[in-house]
Amino acid sequence: MSQHRFIKALLRQPVDKTPLWLMRQAGRYLPEYRKLRADVPNFLTFCKTPELACEATLQPLRRFDLDAAIIFSDILTIPDALNVGLEFAKGEGPLIHRPIRSQADVDKLPKISVVNDLAYVAEAIKLTKKALNNKVPLIGFAGSPWTVACYMVEGSGSKTFFTIREMLYKNPEILHALLEKLMLLTHDYLQMQIDAGADVIMIFDTWGGLLTPKAYQEFSLRYMRQLAKQIKVPVILFSKGADSCLEMIADSDCQGVGVDWTIDIGEAKRRIGDRVAVQGNLDPAVLLSTPEKVQAAAREILSAWGAAPGHIFNLGHGIDLNTPIENVAALVEAVHG
Amino acid sequence: MSQHRFIKALLRQPVDKTPLWLMRQAGRYLPEYRKLRADVPNFLTFCKTPELACEATLQPLRRFDLDAAIIFSDILTIPDALNVGLEFAKGEGPLIHRPIRSQADVDKLPKISVVNDLAYVAEAIKLTKKALNNKVPLIGFAGSPWTVACYMVEGSGSKTFFTIREMLYKNPEILHALLEKLMLLTHDYLQMQIDAGADVIMIFDTWGGLLTPKAYQEFSLRYMRQLAKQIKVPVILFSKGADSCLEMIADSDCQGVGVDWTIDIGEAKRRIGDRVAVQGNLDPAVLLSTPEKVQAAAREILSAWGAAPGHIFNLGHGIDLNTPIENVAALVEAVHG
Repeated sequence: MSQHRFIKALLRQPVDKTPLWLMRQAGRYLPEYRKLRADVPNFLTFCKTPELACEATLQPLRRFDLDAAIIFSDILTIPDALNVGLEFAKGEGPLIHRPIRSQADVDKLPKISVVNDLAYVAEAIKLTKKALNNKVPLIGFAGSPWTVACYMVEGSGSKTFFTIREMLYKNPEILHALLEKLMLLTHDYLQMQIDAGADVIMIFDTWGGLLTPKAYQEFSLRYMRQLAKQIKVPVILFSKGADSCLEMIADSDCQGVGVDWTIDIGEAKRRIGDRVAVQGNLDPAVLLSTPEKVQAAAREILSAWGAAPGHIFNLGHGIDLNTPIENVAALVEAVHG
Repeated sequence: MSQHRFIKALLRQPVDKTPLWLMRQAGRYLPEYRKLRADVPNFLTFCKTPELACEATLQPLRRFDLDAAIIFSDILTIPDALNVGLEFAKGEGPLIHRPIRSQADVDKLPKISVVNDLAYVAEAIKLTKKALNNKVPLIGFAGSPWTVACYMVEGSGSKTFFTIREMLYKNPEILHALLEKLMLLTHDYLQMQIDAGADVIMIFDTWGGLLTPKAYQEFSLRYMRQLAKQIKVPVILFSKGADSCLEMIADSDCQGVGVDWTIDIGEAKRRIGDRVAVQGNLDPAVLLSTPEKVQAAAREILSAWGAAPGHIFNLGHGIDLNTPIENVAALVEAVHG
């Protein structure tokens, strides 16, 4: 695997072409995914069926010359195993019917065995690794403890997540107790994925950008760093919207830092690109325009980065479900061209 | 007015105490506001009744020793006057029933006269100025053309505003036509507010942070700069989430830059505080904790800023409706203490 350009770029070694993969590259913008998904009653059942997760993971690789696969799953598998009543309600995003609001709620969380209760993820990884046959590396992933806690405390998605932010200031000890539990489970979860064959680990911190830099360090980065330190494969940390914390992230025992589209990649490189690899950062909305505009925007990012090693091309956030297939093809061509 | 500490700080002159006001200081966290609002069928009617807007503006000043008043109104008064079907549906935020999706939609927007159609805002300002009797300056405001366009194109609030972001990349000429119209109307609107007595102008660019730095410059900042250049009273520009664009904003003919809580104020000062005043930046979620924690957090911000002139204390975003009154009182005491 160490000869794949995705791994080489992540270790800041020279590559023949800039590697790329796309956050949510497996998913609803693909007609073959929608077809596969249509036969399954709900999203969680889909995630929990290793054959389906494997097939969804492979679909985008059949269409596009992508440099990595990422296992099809969700950042909320751990809360689901913790029996907090996770539901993906149609058109509403995730709901958690028994949210965590007190120390008693944290204490009452069941002791689970990740390798048993989340074995379906390991199984999906094993199937996928076999099918990939070392063609490209496979990324395993988890939500950051902070981001998973956001949903567990709020009980749903939110623009502001005021419930957990109130807990952060009012009862930080409760929040730390929850984050510590999630960190330990996430460690076991990621280790299980590595044991099953994951070559790289990505930690998605979708809501790290809601925090002050000080709170980010204490409640989000601290737990991600503990995970990164213990993981023996390369790790990419991605805190969406945490522009002002990029240097801190780069100093957190990771090999790569994801950046969203709200910062110029040349600027991100100046700030952190001599320490770790940088992954990003096309605005996913560009993919809603035309193949020509997509290619021009991709070339702008490549040229802002320049010739140095250590760039993995990606979007600044997940691909939108209305993205036309031909625009994705045009993007891959421009980045590899 | 030039002797008020809010104006002096905005012009980076020495002040006896750090001035403060709070975004959405008039509003639902105040029981007297909820009482006033309960008698009015809907929010737009409330905004359009100068006596009510005046009373809501004055309410927080009776409770707290704030250094500025801000006229009670909404950033969507201009789309309302443009007859796009604005409605504040209960619990849903703003809806726009006839969103702008094409050049024809832009062309069909009626020619309006701001001084006639939005006269209620001027009237509210005149009443408020009289009642304030020069005790503190009065801030007039508008949404930035980009932010107002976000709602007009999307047709509602959104986490991602993908519809306007698609338009930005696919049909930038349509978006510029809309933004140009909004900019001209906003100019007249702000001039009307100044003529009625507004001492300072604030432009709220709530969704500027959704953009790449390049798109921010072209689609948001460009129009705010045109406004700031023409306005003869001090102007504060606030683009939420636009951390990586602070220098650009500071160079845009404004006197003050608002910053949200995701950047350390000391860092914001290093980057821009020698050019313009900085307004911010307490996390509004801190106000959900305890008076002691609020005061500690306020002191941290004051100390991170230091002794230099040019700091206006504020929140990094609007005050949350669940904020306890005693925490606001504690904040004011800490900042002035």
